[in-house]
Amino acid sequence: MKLLEEKILKDGKVYPEGVIKVDSFLTHQIDTNLIFECSREWYDEFKDMGVTKILTIDGSGIGISCLVARHFNVPVLCAKKSRTNNGIGGDFYSTKVVSLTHGHEYSVTVKKQLITENDRVLIIDDFLSNGTAMKALITLCKIAGAAVVGCGAAIEKVYQGGGNDIRRMGYTVKSLAMISSVSDGGKIEFC
Amino acid sequence: MKLLEEKILKDGKVYPEGVIKVDSFLTHQIDTNLIFECSREWYDEFKDMGVTKILTIDGSGIGISCLVARHFNVPVLCAKKSRTNNGIGGDFYSTKVVSLTHGHEYSVTVKKQLITENDRVLIIDDFLSNGTAMKALITLCKIAGAAVVGCGAAIEKVYQGGGNDIRRMGYTVKSLAMISSVSDGGKIEFC
Repeated sequence: MKLLEEKILKDGKVYPEGVIKVDSFLTHQIDTNLIFECSREWYDEFKDMGVTKILTIDGSGIGISCLVARHFNVPVLCAKKSRTNNGIGGDFYSTKVVSLTHGHEYSVTVKKQLITENDRVLIIDDFLSNGTAMKALITLCKIAGAAVVGCGAAIEKVYQGGGNDIRRMGYTVKSLAMISSVSDGGKIEFC
Repeated sequence: MKLLEEKILKDGKVYPEGVIKVDSFLTHQIDTNLIFECSREWYDEFKDMGVTKILTIDGSGIGISCLVARHFNVPVLCAKKSRTNNGIGGDFYSTKVVSLTHGHEYSVTVKKQLITENDRVLIIDDFLSNGTAMKALITLCKIAGAAVVGCGAAIEKVYQGGGNDIRRMGYTVKSLAMISSVSDGGKIEFC
Protein backbone atom coordinates (compact mmCIF):
# COMPACT_ATOMS: atom_id res chain seq x y z
CA MET A 1 0.00 0.00 0.00
CA LYS A 2 1.76 3.03 -1.35
CA LEU A 3 0.37 5.54 1.17
CA LEU A 4 1.68 3.54 4.12
CA GLU A 5 5.07 2.87 2.52
CA GLU A 6 5.50 6.57 1.80
CA LYS A 7 4.57 7.44 5.38
CA ILE A 8 7.10 4.92 6.73
CA LEU A 9 9.84 6.39 4.53
CA LYS A 10 8.88 9.94 5.49
CA ASP A 11 8.22 9.61 9.24
CA GLY A 12 9.55 6.20 10.34
CA LYS A 13 12.81 6.08 12.28
CA VAL A 14 15.33 3.27 12.15
CA TYR A 15 17.19 2.34 15.34
CA PRO A 16 19.97 -0.20 15.86
CA GLU A 17 19.21 -3.91 15.33
CA GLY A 18 16.57 -3.18 12.73
CA VAL A 19 14.09 -1.62 15.16
CA ILE A 20 11.69 0.62 13.22
CA LYS A 21 9.76 3.28 15.12
CA VAL A 22 6.50 4.47 13.68
CA ASP A 23 5.41 6.15 16.87
CA SER A 24 4.44 9.43 15.22
CA PHE A 25 1.65 7.86 13.13
CA LEU A 26 0.88 4.24 14.07
CA THR A 27 1.68 3.33 17.66
CA HIS A 28 2.14 6.21 20.12
CA GLN A 29 0.31 8.73 17.94
CA ILE A 30 -2.20 7.30 15.48
CA ASP A 31 -2.93 8.97 12.14
CA THR A 32 -6.58 7.99 11.90
CA ASN A 33 -6.91 8.93 8.25
CA LEU A 34 -4.02 6.62 7.43
CA ILE A 35 -5.40 3.69 9.43
CA PHE A 36 -8.82 4.24 7.86
CA GLU A 37 -7.22 3.75 4.44
CA CYS A 38 -5.51 0.64 5.81
CA SER A 39 -8.84 -0.69 7.07
CA ARG A 40 -10.34 -0.37 3.59
CA GLU A 41 -7.58 -2.51 2.09
CA TRP A 42 -8.37 -5.39 4.41
CA TYR A 43 -12.08 -5.02 3.81
CA ASP A 44 -11.50 -5.25 0.05
CA GLU A 45 -9.40 -8.37 0.56
CA PHE A 46 -11.65 -10.24 2.99
CA LYS A 47 -15.14 -8.84 2.40
CA ASP A 48 -16.52 -12.05 0.87
CA MET A 49 -15.16 -14.36 3.56
CA GLY A 50 -18.07 -14.20 5.99
CA VAL A 51 -16.03 -12.56 8.75
CA THR A 52 -17.90 -12.57 12.08
CA LYS A 53 -15.21 -11.16 14.35
CA ILE A 54 -11.98 -9.15 14.30
CA LEU A 55 -9.41 -10.56 16.71
CA THR A 56 -6.48 -8.48 17.93
CA ILE A 57 -4.30 -8.23 21.02
CA ASP A 58 -3.88 -5.61 23.75
CA GLY A 59 -1.91 -2.71 22.36
CA SER A 60 -1.79 -0.21 19.60
CA GLY A 61 -3.54 -2.52 17.12
CA ILE A 62 -6.89 -1.93 18.86
CA GLY A 63 -7.59 1.31 17.01
CA ILE A 64 -6.92 -0.08 13.57
CA SER A 65 -9.02 -3.16 14.43
CA CYS A 66 -12.01 -1.03 15.41
CA LEU A 67 -11.94 0.76 12.05
CA VAL A 68 -11.73 -2.59 10.23
CA ALA A 69 -14.62 -3.95 12.28
CA ARG A 70 -16.83 -1.02 11.26
CA HIS A 71 -16.60 -2.08 7.59
CA PHE A 72 -17.55 -5.66 8.40
CA ASN A 73 -20.17 -4.62 10.96
CA VAL A 74 -18.75 -7.07 13.49
CA PRO A 75 -17.23 -6.72 16.99
CA VAL A 76 -13.55 -6.61 17.89
CA LEU A 77 -12.29 -9.20 20.33
CA CYS A 78 -9.16 -7.98 22.06
CA ALA A 79 -7.06 -10.80 23.52
CA LYS A 80 -5.50 -9.90 26.85
CA LYS A 81 -1.77 -10.24 27.36
CA SER A 82 -1.94 -11.21 31.01
CA ARG A 83 -4.45 -11.77 33.74
CA THR A 84 -4.69 -8.69 35.95
CA ASN A 85 -5.52 -8.79 39.66
CA ASN A 86 -9.13 -7.93 39.05
CA GLY A 87 -9.24 -10.52 36.24
CA ILE A 88 -11.91 -10.29 33.67
CA GLY A 89 -13.83 -13.09 35.32
CA GLY A 90 -15.06 -16.43 34.12
CA ASP A 91 -13.57 -18.99 31.84
CA PHE A 92 -10.74 -18.34 29.40
CA TYR A 93 -8.89 -19.91 26.53
CA SER A 94 -5.20 -19.28 27.11
CA THR A 95 -1.86 -19.82 25.42
CA LYS A 96 1.64 -18.99 26.64
CA VAL A 97 3.99 -16.72 24.70
CA VAL A 98 7.60 -15.65 25.20
CA SER A 99 8.15 -12.04 24.15
CA LEU A 100 11.33 -11.70 22.09
CA THR A 101 11.22 -7.95 22.67
CA HIS A 102 10.94 -8.02 26.43
CA GLY A 103 12.22 -11.51 27.24
CA HIS A 104 9.42 -12.47 29.62
CA GLU A 105 6.67 -15.05 29.34
CA TYR A 106 3.03 -14.01 29.31
CA SER A 107 -0.36 -15.54 28.68
CA VAL A 108 -2.66 -14.51 25.87
CA THR A 109 -6.27 -15.09 26.81
CA VAL A 110 -9.79 -14.69 25.46
CA LYS A 111 -13.04 -15.33 27.25
CA LYS A 112 -14.52 -18.61 26.04
CA GLN A 113 -18.02 -17.31 25.57
CA LEU A 114 -16.80 -14.58 23.18
CA ILE A 115 -15.37 -16.91 20.53
CA THR A 116 -17.05 -20.07 19.30
CA GLU A 117 -16.82 -22.67 16.56
CA ASN A 118 -19.32 -20.58 14.59
CA ASP A 119 -16.90 -17.66 14.32
CA ARG A 120 -14.99 -16.76 11.19
CA VAL A 121 -12.13 -14.64 12.45
CA LEU A 122 -9.98 -12.01 10.78
CA ILE A 123 -6.85 -11.37 12.85
CA ILE A 124 -5.54 -7.79 12.68
CA ASP A 125 -2.47 -6.18 14.20
CA ASP A 126 -0.30 -3.18 13.47
CA PHE A 127 3.02 -5.07 13.40
CA LEU A 128 4.06 -8.52 12.22
CA SER A 129 7.69 -9.29 13.02
CA ASN A 130 8.56 -12.74 14.31
CA GLY A 131 4.84 -13.46 14.49
CA THR A 132 4.71 -14.44 18.16
CA ALA A 133 1.52 -12.54 18.92
CA MET A 134 -0.25 -13.50 15.69
CA LYS A 135 0.59 -17.18 16.14
CA ALA A 136 -0.82 -17.00 19.66
CA LEU A 137 -4.06 -15.55 18.29
CA ILE A 138 -4.26 -18.34 15.68
CA THR A 139 -3.72 -20.89 18.48
CA LEU A 140 -6.60 -19.37 20.48
CA CYS A 141 -8.89 -19.65 17.43
CA LYS A 142 -7.87 -23.29 16.97
CA ILE A 143 -8.56 -24.10 20.63
CA ALA A 144 -11.96 -22.42 20.32
CA GLY A 145 -12.73 -24.26 17.07
CA ALA A 146 -13.17 -20.95 15.24
CA ALA A 147 -12.06 -20.58 11.61
CA VAL A 148 -9.28 -18.10 10.81
CA VAL A 149 -10.19 -16.54 7.46
CA GLY A 150 -7.01 -14.50 7.29
CA CYS A 151 -4.50 -12.25 8.99
CA GLY A 152 -3.75 -8.60 8.36
CA ALA A 153 -0.78 -6.57 9.51
CA ALA A 154 -0.11 -2.95 8.70
CA ILE A 155 3.67 -3.42 8.68
CA GLU A 156 5.38 -6.76 8.15
CA LYS A 157 9.11 -7.04 8.78
CA VAL A 158 9.54 -9.85 6.27
CA TYR A 159 13.15 -10.44 7.31
CA GLN A 160 12.00 -11.53 10.77
CA GLY A 161 10.13 -14.46 9.27
CA GLY A 162 6.85 -14.45 11.20
CA GLY A 163 4.64 -13.64 8.21
CA ASN A 164 6.10 -16.40 6.07
CA ASP A 165 5.85 -18.90 8.94
CA ILE A 166 2.14 -18.15 9.08
CA ARG A 167 1.75 -18.38 5.30
CA ARG A 168 3.45 -21.81 5.40
CA MET A 169 0.87 -22.83 8.01
CA GLY A 170 -1.69 -22.24 5.24
CA TYR A 171 -3.13 -18.87 6.22
CA THR A 172 -3.62 -15.82 4.04
CA VAL A 173 -1.58 -12.93 5.40
CA LYS A 174 -2.29 -9.50 3.93
CA SER A 175 0.39 -7.03 5.01
CA LEU A 176 0.10 -3.49 3.76
CA ALA A 177 3.78 -2.55 3.91
CA MET A 178 6.26 -5.41 3.61
CA ILE A 179 9.74 -4.40 4.68
CA SER A 180 12.35 -6.69 3.13
CA SER A 181 15.41 -5.16 4.73
CA VAL A 182 16.78 -2.31 6.79
CA SER A 183 20.37 -1.41 6.01
CA ASP A 184 22.97 -0.45 8.63
CA GLY A 185 22.64 3.09 7.33
CA GLY A 186 18.92 3.03 8.17
CA LYS A 187 17.59 2.64 4.64
CA ILE A 188 14.25 0.81 4.51
CA GLU A 189 13.51 -1.42 1.49
CA PHE A 190 10.09 -2.83 0.63
CA CYS A 191 9.35 -6.12 -1.16
CA MET B 1 -26.94 8.19 26.46
CA LYS B 2 -29.83 5.78 26.47
CA LEU B 3 -28.28 3.18 24.14
CA LEU B 4 -25.23 2.75 26.37
CA GLU B 5 -27.27 2.67 29.59
CA GLU B 6 -29.51 -0.02 28.15
CA LYS B 7 -26.50 -2.04 27.04
CA ILE B 8 -24.98 -1.78 30.53
CA LEU B 9 -28.22 -2.98 32.13
CA LYS B 10 -28.58 -5.81 29.61
CA ASP B 11 -25.01 -7.10 29.34
CA GLY B 12 -23.01 -5.54 32.19
CA LYS B 13 -22.13 -7.72 35.17
CA VAL B 14 -21.77 -6.51 38.73
CA TYR B 15 -19.11 -8.09 40.94
CA PRO B 16 -18.34 -7.51 44.63
CA GLU B 17 -17.09 -4.07 45.72
CA GLY B 18 -18.97 -2.31 42.96
CA VAL B 19 -16.81 -3.68 40.13
CA ILE B 20 -18.79 -3.49 36.89
CA LYS B 21 -17.69 -5.69 33.99
CA VAL B 22 -18.58 -4.58 30.51
CA ASP B 23 -16.18 -6.98 28.85
CA SER B 24 -18.70 -8.31 26.36
CA PHE B 25 -19.14 -4.95 24.60
CA LEU B 26 -16.63 -2.29 25.73
CA THR B 27 -13.35 -3.66 27.03
CA HIS B 28 -12.49 -7.26 26.12
CA GLN B 29 -14.93 -7.41 23.22
CA ILE B 30 -15.84 -4.09 21.60
CA ASP B 31 -19.23 -3.45 20.02
CA THR B 32 -18.05 -1.09 17.30
CA ASN B 33 -21.56 0.09 16.41
CA LEU B 34 -22.09 1.09 20.03
CA ILE B 35 -18.79 2.95 20.32
CA PHE B 36 -19.46 4.69 17.02
CA GLU B 37 -22.67 6.06 18.52
CA CYS B 38 -20.67 7.12 21.58
CA SER B 39 -18.14 8.89 19.36
CA ARG B 40 -20.90 10.96 17.75
CA GLU B 41 -22.07 12.21 21.14
CA TRP B 42 -18.65 13.63 21.93
CA TYR B 43 -18.35 15.14 18.49
CA ASP B 44 -21.69 16.91 18.98
CA GLU B 45 -20.52 18.22 22.35
CA PHE B 46 -17.05 19.39 21.38
CA LYS B 47 -17.22 20.02 17.63
CA ASP B 48 -16.87 23.81 17.91
CA MET B 49 -13.95 23.73 20.33
CA GLY B 50 -11.10 23.61 17.80
CA VAL B 51 -9.91 20.17 18.90
CA THR B 52 -6.50 19.32 17.41
CA LYS B 53 -5.80 16.04 19.16
CA ILE B 54 -7.53 13.20 21.00
CA LEU B 55 -5.53 12.05 24.03
CA THR B 56 -6.11 8.66 25.62
CA ILE B 57 -4.09 6.08 27.53
CA ASP B 58 -2.90 2.56 26.74
CA GLY B 59 -5.81 0.18 26.99
CA SER B 60 -9.29 -0.46 25.78
CA GLY B 61 -10.03 3.26 25.27
CA ILE B 62 -7.87 3.32 22.14
CA GLY B 63 -10.60 2.00 19.87
CA ILE B 64 -13.22 4.47 21.00
CA SER B 65 -10.66 7.29 20.70
CA CYS B 66 -9.87 6.40 17.08
CA LEU B 67 -13.56 6.61 16.16
CA VAL B 68 -13.83 9.99 17.89
CA ALA B 69 -10.71 11.24 16.10
CA ARG B 70 -12.21 10.36 12.70
CA HIS B 71 -15.04 12.87 13.28
CA PHE B 72 -12.62 15.64 14.22
CA ASN B 73 -10.11 14.66 11.52
CA VAL B 74 -7.28 14.74 14.06
CA PRO B 75 -4.78 12.15 15.35
CA VAL B 76 -5.02 10.12 18.55
CA LEU B 77 -2.17 10.42 21.00
CA CYS B 78 -2.00 7.36 23.21
CA ALA B 79 -0.12 7.98 26.47
CA LYS B 80 1.98 5.03 27.52
CA LYS B 81 1.57 3.51 30.96
CA SER B 82 5.21 2.61 31.45
CA ARG B 83 8.49 2.69 29.64
CA THR B 84 9.20 -0.65 28.01
CA ASN B 85 12.69 -2.08 27.48
CA ASN B 86 12.75 -1.00 23.87
CA GLY B 87 11.44 2.43 24.92
CA ILE B 88 9.80 4.64 22.38
CA GLY B 89 12.92 6.76 22.18
CA GLY B 90 13.59 10.44 22.69
CA ASP B 91 12.23 12.91 25.11
CA PHE B 92 9.07 12.45 27.17
CA TYR B 93 6.70 14.29 29.43
CA SER B 94 5.98 12.01 32.36
CA THR B 95 3.82 11.89 35.47
CA LYS B 96 3.62 9.21 38.16
CA VAL B 97 0.39 7.44 39.04
CA VAL B 98 -0.58 4.88 41.68
CA SER B 99 -3.14 2.39 40.35
CA LEU B 100 -5.91 1.83 42.88
CA THR B 101 -6.92 -1.29 40.96
CA HIS B 102 -3.53 -2.97 40.89
CA GLY B 103 -1.74 -1.20 43.73
CA HIS B 104 1.47 -0.46 41.87
CA GLU B 105 3.02 2.79 40.72
CA TYR B 106 3.54 3.50 37.05
CA SER B 107 4.51 6.39 34.83
CA VAL B 108 2.26 7.90 32.21
CA THR B 109 4.29 9.38 29.37
CA VAL B 110 3.88 11.14 26.06
CA LYS B 111 6.57 12.10 23.61
CA LYS B 112 7.25 15.83 23.86
CA GLN B 113 7.25 16.48 20.15
CA LEU B 114 3.73 15.03 19.80
CA ILE B 115 1.98 17.54 22.07
CA THR B 116 2.63 21.26 22.10
CA GLU B 117 1.25 24.52 23.44
CA ASN B 118 -0.66 24.87 20.16
CA ASP B 119 -2.72 21.77 20.85
CA ARG B 120 -6.35 21.81 21.95
CA VAL B 121 -6.86 18.40 23.48
CA LEU B 122 -9.97 16.30 24.01
CA ILE B 123 -9.26 13.51 26.51
CA ILE B 124 -11.22 10.30 25.91
CA ASP B 125 -11.36 7.05 27.87
CA ASP B 126 -13.80 4.22 28.27
CA PHE B 127 -13.98 4.36 32.10
CA LEU B 128 -13.88 7.17 34.62
CA SER B 129 -13.85 5.91 38.21
CA ASN B 130 -11.53 7.59 40.70
CA GLY B 131 -10.10 9.56 37.80
CA THR B 132 -6.45 8.59 38.31
CA ALA B 133 -5.72 8.05 34.62
CA MET B 134 -7.67 11.08 33.41
CA LYS B 135 -6.03 13.37 35.96
CA ALA B 136 -2.63 12.11 34.78
CA LEU B 137 -3.55 12.96 31.19
CA ILE B 138 -4.63 16.47 32.27
CA THR B 139 -1.30 16.86 34.09
CA LEU B 140 0.59 15.90 30.93
CA CYS B 141 -1.33 18.52 28.94
CA LYS B 142 -0.53 21.15 31.57
CA ILE B 143 3.18 20.27 31.51
CA ALA B 144 3.14 20.51 27.72
CA GLY B 145 1.26 23.81 27.80
CA ALA B 146 -1.58 22.33 25.75
CA ALA B 147 -5.20 23.35 26.38
CA VAL B 148 -7.66 20.71 27.58
CA VAL B 149 -10.96 21.50 25.89
CA GLY B 150 -12.78 18.70 27.67
CA CYS B 151 -12.90 15.12 28.84
CA GLY B 152 -15.14 12.29 27.69
CA ALA B 153 -15.75 8.95 29.35
CA ALA B 154 -18.11 6.27 28.15
CA ILE B 155 -18.95 5.11 31.67
CA GLU B 156 -18.51 7.25 34.77
CA LYS B 157 -18.83 5.65 38.18
CA VAL B 158 -19.99 8.85 39.82
CA TYR B 159 -19.82 7.32 43.31
CA GLN B 160 -16.05 6.95 42.96
CA GLY B 161 -15.68 10.71 42.68
CA GLY B 162 -13.11 11.12 39.91
CA GLY B 163 -15.45 12.84 37.46
CA ASN B 164 -16.59 15.42 40.00
CA ASP B 165 -12.99 16.04 41.10
CA ILE B 166 -12.18 16.92 37.50
CA ARG B 167 -15.29 19.11 37.13
CA ARG B 168 -14.25 20.99 40.27
CA MET B 169 -10.88 21.57 38.63
CA GLY B 170 -12.85 23.52 36.00
CA TYR B 171 -12.98 21.03 33.14
CA THR B 172 -16.00 19.92 31.15
CA VAL B 173 -16.54 16.20 31.58
CA LYS B 174 -19.03 14.55 29.24
CA SER B 175 -19.80 11.03 30.42
CA LEU B 176 -22.27 9.02 28.38
CA ALA B 177 -23.49 6.72 31.15
CA MET B 178 -23.26 8.07 34.69
CA ILE B 179 -23.67 5.34 37.29
CA SER B 180 -24.79 6.79 40.62
CA SER B 181 -24.83 3.57 42.61
CA VAL B 182 -24.56 -0.17 42.51
CA SER B 183 -26.58 -1.96 45.17
CA ASP B 184 -25.38 -5.02 47.08
CA GLY B 185 -27.85 -6.99 45.02
CA GLY B 186 -26.10 -5.86 41.84
CA LYS B 187 -28.68 -3.29 40.72
CA ILE B 188 -27.15 -0.44 38.69
CA GLU B 189 -28.69 3.04 39.00
CA PHE B 190 -27.95 5.95 36.67
CA CYS B 191 -27.95 9.66 37.54
